[in-house]
Amino acid sequence: MANKLKAVILGGSGYGGAELLRRLLFHPHVEILRTTAGESAGKRVSDVHLNLAGLTDLSFEGLAPKEAVAGADVAFLAMPHKTTAQVVLDILASGVRIVDLSGDFRLRDAATYAKFYGVQHPGPQHLTDGTFTYGLPELNREAIRKAKYIASPGCFATTIALGLLPLARGGKLRGPVQTVAATGSSGSGNTPQLTTHHPLRASNLRTYKPLEHQHIPEILQTLRLAGGAEDVSLEFVPVSAPLPRGIFATSFVNVPAATTQEELDALWKETFAREPFIRVIRGARQPEVVGVAGGNYVEVGFTLGPVTGDTRRVVCFSTLDNLVKGGAGQAIQSFNLMMGFDERLTLAEPGLWP
Amino acid sequence: MANKLKAVILGGSGYGGAELLRRLLFHPHVEILRTTAGESAGKRVSDVHLNLAGLTDLSFEGLAPKEAVAGADVAFLAMPHKTTAQVVLDILASGVRIVDLSGDFRLRDAATYAKFYGVQHPGPQHLTDGTFTYGLPELNREAIRKAKYIASPGCFATTIALGLLPLARGGKLRGPVQTVAATGSSGSGNTPQLTTHHPLRASNLRTYKPLEHQHIPEILQTLRLAGGAEDVSLEFVPVSAPLPRGIFATSFVNVPAATTQEELDALWKETFAREPFIRVIRGARQPEVVGVAGGNYVEVGFTLGPVTGDTRRVVCFSTLDNLVKGGAGQAIQSFNLMMGFDERLTLAEPGLWP
Amino acid sequence: MANKLKAVILGGSGYGGAELLRRLLFHPHVEILRTTAGESAGKRVSDVHLNLAGLTDLSFEGLAPKEAVAGADVAFLAMPHKTTAQVVLDILASGVRIVDLSGDFRLRDAATYAKFYGVQHPGPQHLTDGTFTYGLPELNREAIRKAKYIASPGCFATTIALGLLPLARGGKLRGPVQTVAATGSSGSGNTPQLTTHHPLRASNLRTYKPLEHQHIPEILQTLRLAGGAEDVSLEFVPVSAPLPRGIFATSFVNVPAATTQEELDALWKETFAREPFIRVIRGARQPEVVGVAGGNYVEVGFTLGPVTGDTRRVVCFSTLDNLVKGGAGQAIQSFNLMMGFDERLTLAEPGLWP
Amino acid sequence: MANKLKAVILGGSGYGGAELLRRLLFHPHVEILRTTAGESAGKRVSDVHLNLAGLTDLSFEGLAPKEAVAGADVAFLAMPHKTTAQVVLDILASGVRIVDLSGDFRLRDAATYAKFYGVQHPGPQHLTDGTFTYGLPELNREAIRKAKYIASPGCFATTIALGLLPLARGGKLRGPVQTVAATGSSGSGNTPQLTTHHPLRASNLRTYKPLEHQHIPEILQTLRLAGGAEDVSLEFVPVSAPLPRGIFATSFVNVPAATTQEELDALWKETFAREPFIRVIRGARQPEVVGVAGGNYVEVGFTLGPVTGDTRRVVCFSTLDNLVKGGAGQAIQSFNLMMGFDERLTLAEPGLWP
Repeated sequence: MANKLKAVILGGSGYGGAELLRRLLFHPHVEILRTTAGESAGKRVSDVHLNLAGLTDLSFEGLAPKEAVAGADVAFLAMPHKTTAQVVLDILASGVRIVDLSGDFRLRDAATYAKFYGVQHPGPQHLTDGTFTYGLPELNREAIRKAKYIASPGCFATTIALGLLPLARGGKLRGPVQTVAATGSSGSGNTPQLTTHHPLRASNLRTYKPLEHQHIPEILQTLRLAGGAEDVSLEFVPVSAPLPRGIFATSFVNVPAATTQEELDALWKETFAREPFIRVIRGARQPEVVGVAGGNYVEVGFTLGPVTGDTRRVVCFSTLDNLVKGGAGQAIQSFNLMMGFDERLTLAEPGLWP
Repeated sequence: MANKLKAVILGGSGYGGAELLRRLLFHPHVEILRTTAGESAGKRVSDVHLNLAGLTDLSFEGLAPKEAVAGADVAFLAMPHKTTAQVVLDILASGVRIVDLSGDFRLRDAATYAKFYGVQHPGPQHLTDGTFTYGLPELNREAIRKAKYIASPGCFATTIALGLLPLARGGKLRGPVQTVAATGSSGSGNTPQLTTHHPLRASNLRTYKPLEHQHIPEILQTLRLAGGAEDVSLEFVPVSAPLPRGIFATSFVNVPAATTQEELDALWKETFAREPFIRVIRGARQPEVVGVAGGNYVEVGFTLGPVTGDTRRVVCFSTLDNLVKGGAGQAIQSFNLMMGFDERLTLAEPGLWP
Repeated sequence: MANKLKAVILGGSGYGGAELLRRLLFHPHVEILRTTAGESAGKRVSDVHLNLAGLTDLSFEGLAPKEAVAGADVAFLAMPHKTTAQVVLDILASGVRIVDLSGDFRLRDAATYAKFYGVQHPGPQHLTDGTFTYGLPELNREAIRKAKYIASPGCFATTIALGLLPLARGGKLRGPVQTVAATGSSGSGNTPQLTTHHPLRASNLRTYKPLEHQHIPEILQTLRLAGGAEDVSLEFVPVSAPLPRGIFATSFVNVPAATTQEELDALWKETFAREPFIRVIRGARQPEVVGVAGGNYVEVGFTLGPVTGDTRRVVCFSTLDNLVKGGAGQAIQSFNLMMGFDERLTLAEPGLWP
Repeated sequence: MANKLKAVILGGSGYGGAELLRRLLFHPHVEILRTTAGESAGKRVSDVHLNLAGLTDLSFEGLAPKEAVAGADVAFLAMPHKTTAQVVLDILASGVRIVDLSGDFRLRDAATYAKFYGVQHPGPQHLTDGTFTYGLPELNREAIRKAKYIASPGCFATTIALGLLPLARGGKLRGPVQTVAATGSSGSGNTPQLTTHHPLRASNLRTYKPLEHQHIPEILQTLRLAGGAEDVSLEFVPVSAPLPRGIFATSFVNVPAATTQEELDALWKETFAREPFIRVIRGARQPEVVGVAGGNYVEVGFTLGPVTGDTRRVVCFSTLDNLVKGGAGQAIQSFNLMMGFDERLTLAEPGLWP
């Protein structure tokens, strides 16, 4: 074990923490030093995440952030938005590497943060000065390799941005984009609430925060960095769907009327040619959740719509597991890159069928 | 409206209350005077039970029991076990008829109540003196017709007792009975909790309170009244299943080795011959939830097992909707009987298919 | 029974037939004379639709259309698209009233029918000459009252058209509209197939026929009749979701930049002011399936989006039960209107909660 | 790749085949030479099992058994009961090692096979002569290490037998045992049928083949080998539940009245002390599916029931994933043992949470 990196997981009792633990426990270069939790402090990890029974003797510790990272090489933060920012400020001086799954260091603009998260950021300089590298390998692989601090993307943000990435890369993404993305219930976290109460959720479809979801600026930031026009905007309708895991996104984009199928086929192919986790679906079917749930893979595809005036629509589809590629899996992928490992470590195995 | 009975529903914000409201709003002889709630007091009924939008202008009121029943002909109580007992004591002198969906007046023995509910009953004399009539029409129809106070049966109790009723009636129910009954999530009520959290519940099967469920003495009391032996006992394992509505019960009973299929066929047929809501399933299939969910109907059936020694097993199956025949529907059935109405009023329509 | 209308249900073994039977069996002015089926001919109705056990002695008959409607006042047709057209031609001379749930007489244009259904219509003159009245009461109530032949709308068509009706009525519907609508599995009918195989469907989200669904021209026809511009077009992405019943539609529409919330509030209010089954959802929440599943009610709502250039988006939400208001319920609503009955007969009761 | 074992999977298009492929593709000592299928012959593996896109270039081949195993070191058979027997006879002379997931070589008695599977076995001598070793490591580990032909246990059989194993080992298993076991829909295979049709299955609980399931003799054979009395018998009620994966079994056993909790605690502990995949659940909770679905682990537990006469009941609970420890995972576990590998290879990672 001497050569293993020592990792801590702050906020290990949620579903993001569960997925981190499940995978890092089997990572060949990682030893989990400890994990912390709030309400679950003192409980055995395997009494909270039942799937880990017999696989770890860890218990959740109720430590302050500085104590929590003592002796660690890397800290995975799987804590709520808004409370994570201060935790990061508390441990930044310690020298520990950070992979943060929250939304607190993803944006480069403090005013946007304040608008979408509803609070002032306690360390706004760290948003603008590039302390954190946005951990989307398909956008940012080389920067991630050199990073020390990773802001790992959100689940909706990853799904939607990956679905639109080829158009952005190809300089074809401009103006308002309309997106509907349906998500599984695990995206709401492990705290029971009315919107995840089984009798209601099991047979429901509903939207929440339409046009106002906090991932909107994160997605736009990614798309502009990838080549999207400055005027690109996102009209995003999240939908709650009755399955535990998975997001399915549909996005409508206006492209020049002359755009052809061949052109787009080439764009999708090139954009993801060397991506180990992206599957471009062509032919008879379109992306579907059941092909990716449980694993770190993403299915993307598109269909070319009709011409109206000087534009035609492209409808982009993308799907992934919100807790893996949309959460802990992607965090580990960035971690692997940051440490110089094969980025597929602990992530290569696909999800279940069925 | 002059001739309609004035009904109040105490505790109308839960799922039992929702089902009472949904049906009583369309009862030809009932006018709902008001409904009360605890935490939901002040909210419009249709903001809590979304299905009722446009169908009622009622809001939940936060009244003390005595005020709540003022002017009412009948009070339906859809409140939690243990708190209902005192509510009943508060309103008993008012003269209002009561249909109580809680477990507080079902048992005839205060010590058993104390043991299974974990508290002393505040009005134990009302358990023993027959103030309340147990509202299982298949057991007690004539008594219900004359009753003023109804203790409406529990969901597991109704399912299991109806499944075993023919053997009890036929004098063939004695000794220990083993029962496994799986239930939908609405049986846990409308308060979100970990056991009904969609990400976990949607793919889970688990037991809770095995051999200790509070419905055990209620079931035994029913079965003995129906003809079961004094020594009959119940080893009951409840199982939580991932569907919103429905209970499916399997019970193993030892009968004399000479018992025949014909004998049992006749027993089942006779027991339920004039029952409007009981369907005896014979032939190729057995009872299943999808045939009864959403309605007040019950499917019962059995299969005859092997002989070992001087006994052979009968395996009894029964299924119903926990919120209808296992809850509000049965309460209305008893109410209809008590008032001299056709017992099928508002209950005749079957559940959905599919 | 002398005064009751004699109804037959052709194609009664599917889910549309099941819902028709469930409700018509309790219709005060209807007697079900017989019902037919293909593969299920000879089976008892209650052996196919288990919820009807004990409520009907009918068996499915394997009759030719002419024989099937003999002696009937009204025929409900719940048969597949493409085969229904010929059935109608066979019985049109008999004088029986027809309520057709298939798509075969909804369109007014034979070429469009051929394009979207993939076959030539065998009686194209009946599309153009107004033989059939499109049975959407919110569009066509007065015409339905005078009709003899009803083409009852499709499930997606009803959901999406009702969601957009206020904008069409208000003269604000023009240009391309983007719609994503997720549907429950009962919409695929009662024949098991891979896309409704439980192990896959239970955790899946996927699209099918994106931009090509056969309901597109039906929706456009409705919207133009209601006041939509000639240039309105529909880019519709259907999504399969893991619930049994319900459709949830999200539509993006471009309106003039100056459009205000008040203006739209008034439009929605006016459009549905006297509609017994439409609930306009305002305030904190948006439409959701759980409020309408199991009943004939519809929830509609909208949110006003951002301005870009000289337009701004309105996002329209609508939800209903695909088998009730999206199928058999709406057919009965039109039948009630056609016969001069209260249109709410057998439809007034809401869906279940939960 | 030179040192890897060459494996073929016959019948790779079903769910058992999918799970074998998913895991064997990542097995460090295995190379998958080819896989066969019937109806899916000619299709790419990743067009049938969508989760494997990009992970294999294999297509299903339509080969006769002898050709299918040419050049292979080991053949995994994931084909239907009754057709597998002849396939085995066809390849037995080839010298290839066999791990058979069907039920065709599990029983030691041809008459029992004929009775429960409804056909004569084509090679009955191979049942009685010990050609095949029953691949339940918890019963048979040392024999498996020396085996060349493995009959891998059924899903219900594994669940129920492991739940009862401690009592059998402790000499406390005798007389009739009553078991109810609920199973997920993937246990019915990948062919759509009415019992797995989503609109019905999603909200249903039902039994099938009560007291007649073909796993009964397999379970009894295991339990007797483990120490159960000759007179032990099994009254088994299978229940279909609305989840994709998982089995939850409840078994009632009569033990001597003097049996104590401590005695049983010790039995469970000893029986599974060195078992890498069995988790004995003690304390506040009981086994539940959500702790094991997706992985090769099993949760077992019990509760001690009341004394009646000279016996008292022990209620045994057990749960596992029907496709992993109840299917392909266990087959790989036995394969690992047979080849002298660590039996946990490709199986150590737990299932998902949630």
